[in-house]
Amino acid sequence: MPLLVVGSVALDSVETPQEKRDNVLGGSAVYFSYAASYFSNVRLVGVVGEDWPGEHTELLEKRGIDTSGLEVVEGAKTFRWRGKYHPNMNDRDTLEVHLNVFETFDPKLPEAFTRCEFLFLANGAPKVQMKVLDQVHGPKLVVADTMDLWIEIARDELMELLQRIDGLVMNDQEAKFLTGDDNLVRAGHQVREMGPKFVIIKKGEHGAMFFSEHETYVMPAYPTPQVVDPTGAGDSFGGGMLGYLAEQGNFEPKTLKEAMAYGVVVASFNVEDFSLERMKGIERADLDKRLDEYRKMLNF
Amino acid sequence: MPLLVVGSVALDSVETPQEKRDNVLGGSAVYFSYAASYFSNVRLVGVVGEDWPGEHTELLEKRGIDTSGLEVVEGAKTFRWRGKYHPNMNDRDTLEVHLNVFETFDPKLPEAFTRCEFLFLANGAPKVQMKVLDQVHGPKLVVADTMDLWIEIARDELMELLQRIDGLVMNDQEAKFLTGDDNLVRAGHQVREMGPKFVIIKKGEHGAMFFSEHETYVMPAYPTPQVVDPTGAGDSFGGGMLGYLAEQGNFEPKTLKEAMAYGVVVASFNVEDFSLERMKGIERADLDKRLDEYRKMLNF
Repeated sequence: MPLLVVGSVALDSVETPQEKRDNVLGGSAVYFSYAASYFSNVRLVGVVGEDWPGEHTELLEKRGIDTSGLEVVEGAKTFRWRGKYHPNMNDRDTLEVHLNVFETFDPKLPEAFTRCEFLFLANGAPKVQMKVLDQVHGPKLVVADTMDLWIEIARDELMELLQRIDGLVMNDQEAKFLTGDDNLVRAGHQVREMGPKFVIIKKGEHGAMFFSEHETYVMPAYPTPQVVDPTGAGDSFGGGMLGYLAEQGNFEPKTLKEAMAYGVVVASFNVEDFSLERMKGIERADLDKRLDEYRKMLNF
Repeated sequence: MPLLVVGSVALDSVETPQEKRDNVLGGSAVYFSYAASYFSNVRLVGVVGEDWPGEHTELLEKRGIDTSGLEVVEGAKTFRWRGKYHPNMNDRDTLEVHLNVFETFDPKLPEAFTRCEFLFLANGAPKVQMKVLDQVHGPKLVVADTMDLWIEIARDELMELLQRIDGLVMNDQEAKFLTGDDNLVRAGHQVREMGPKFVIIKKGEHGAMFFSEHETYVMPAYPTPQVVDPTGAGDSFGGGMLGYLAEQGNFEPKTLKEAMAYGVVVASFNVEDFSLERMKGIERADLDKRLDEYRKMLNF
């Protein structure tokens, strides 16, 4: 089944202790779409400026991603982010953010996109995320991501959003911040009680945790020795996960767990190079092979 | 098969954001022994002062731990440690350390202990750990723990020790410090190349990683909502692991993996209360039950 993602499309500048890259393809919706494209048809909604290189759009389309929802604003600039990773490659500092066209992003879904059954609301203002929800007709599964900024400045709207979605994805620090609880197991269930049927807490290099009414589990990150750039790992995880769910057409507990595992595996490839460089070189078979290794790794 | 552990026996004072306890039973060899006692016969070698409460020895003996190697030094005091946990319950500050009798600990193995086939050298000076090795006859499996202090002040002796053991257990920060590599997968294999057949990196609330020539895997911590006091988690993990290996009488790859899982499970109980309080209330059946849940959790 087709999967719709609405979120940021960006040009990132990334510094790691070893290397740096300027103005490379990035943004939540981009990482998500590319990861999901290994599993299902993806429709992307986002906004860029006139500085957006057409080759980036071509790259997405080559993987079958429908970019007809990517609005290009003349006379304006694309969202830009600059960040620097600490030596542990897990923590980072944001050095610069230029929201540019993303500041006034007001997503308008093409008519053909409004009946998408699987929907991912990448990190953005809860108000904007809800505007997307207002445009879709009876989606089967809605999952959203969020961040500390919205917990801080738009808490009420975020709480309203939580009533309207099936799943929430957030990182460990955000879960602690939202609940005020430093134990992630308790925090995960507390967030779930705020509305969503399931909550996923991403722990970076330490994997991810899943919480539903009847299940709590943790999946470690796939142990790759080659971590070049963690940017987009969380969104690749989400893309792999939702892509698999859309492919399977359901979100039964068993499917959700397999989807989490695919998310872990896709993210492990994503961090092995800057931007989408590593992803460009892999096929579905590579994901399946690593998934098998991951499954064996966790089996005892 | 019997399992011998040599290491610290202590009186700990622990502060967490919620509560505090003074002078409770602690020490690496104590946590290790107690955890291992669910699986095999344990022989403990350590030293205490005349302030040592006899009830602590009784507690260990009640679980079948042979304490005939626990030396009591008259006119001297037991090793004392005081620490305070951060709100995340994973990081801590050491507030006070009084080595007391442990400063000059010179382990003398009772004759009956010198033919133990499974041996754990809890954290201590590499020189002292090697003195123990000099006293044992053809052990089948020797595993050691270490810490940043020895990497810093006794690196050469530590490197010598690594040539004489089968397995090394250490935490993530120590592995990074020893190798100078911030990627734990690479660090784990680098430590292995320094001598031991296998290396285990403990990641606190994030679980543990295993490295042998042909295997690399990660096991997440069991997600308990009730983390009261993490003191001794690493040693309980080691005790559960080595205890199971001694019970099985081998350390084949399959057994090692099961042993890691038991280590994770024992540690998850240990953190649910101060000192050995939680462990006192459980039986082997509780460990088996949680192991089953853990196995299912990791299965997809």
